[in-house]
Amino acid sequence: MPRVVVDVMPKPEILDPQGKAVLGALPRLGFGGVTDVRQGKRFELEVAGEVTPEVLAEVEKMAETLLSNPVIENYTVRVEQDA
Amino acid sequence: MPRVVVDVMPKPEILDPQGKAVLGALPRLGFGGVTDVRQGKRFELEVAGEVTPEVLAEVEKMAETLLSNPVIENYTVRVEQDA
Repeated sequence: MPRVVVDVMPKPEILDPQGKAVLGALPRLGFGGVTDVRQGKRFELEVAGEVTPEVLAEVEKMAETLLSNPVIENYTVRVEQDA
Repeated sequence: MPRVVVDVMPKPEILDPQGKAVLGALPRLGFGGVTDVRQGKRFELEVAGEVTPEVLAEVEKMAETLLSNPVIENYTVRVEQDA
């Protein structure tokens, strides 16, 4: 079944304390080579029936009104084939 | 610059109260057609230099020890080209 994925990430100019906490923890755990970490959210939506352009437009509206805060977050909507 | 993305999602057999809250809110906001929602996390890691198989193996270890709880979550690691 196809699945619609909405990724919500903090905008680049917005501080991301969760990402910074992960970035700070990596060296303490012995991991090197990572210069930045951003943490966001991933939503997987199962839709009834076909994923039409109308369905995607509806999901865009969901992403803008419910899944993200457009003041501080960007979102992307895409279709992912289930494995 | 290439970016390594780690997606962390609750395992299918694990209850996902955040996803259920979103699913319950959609009809109240006038959205239909969505039969299930799962909410997880997305991490974007910037790495210094090339993304080699060794770097990806290191990120797999980060995902297992720091970014996810392997008891209740699954993770996927992949490389995404920056737009």
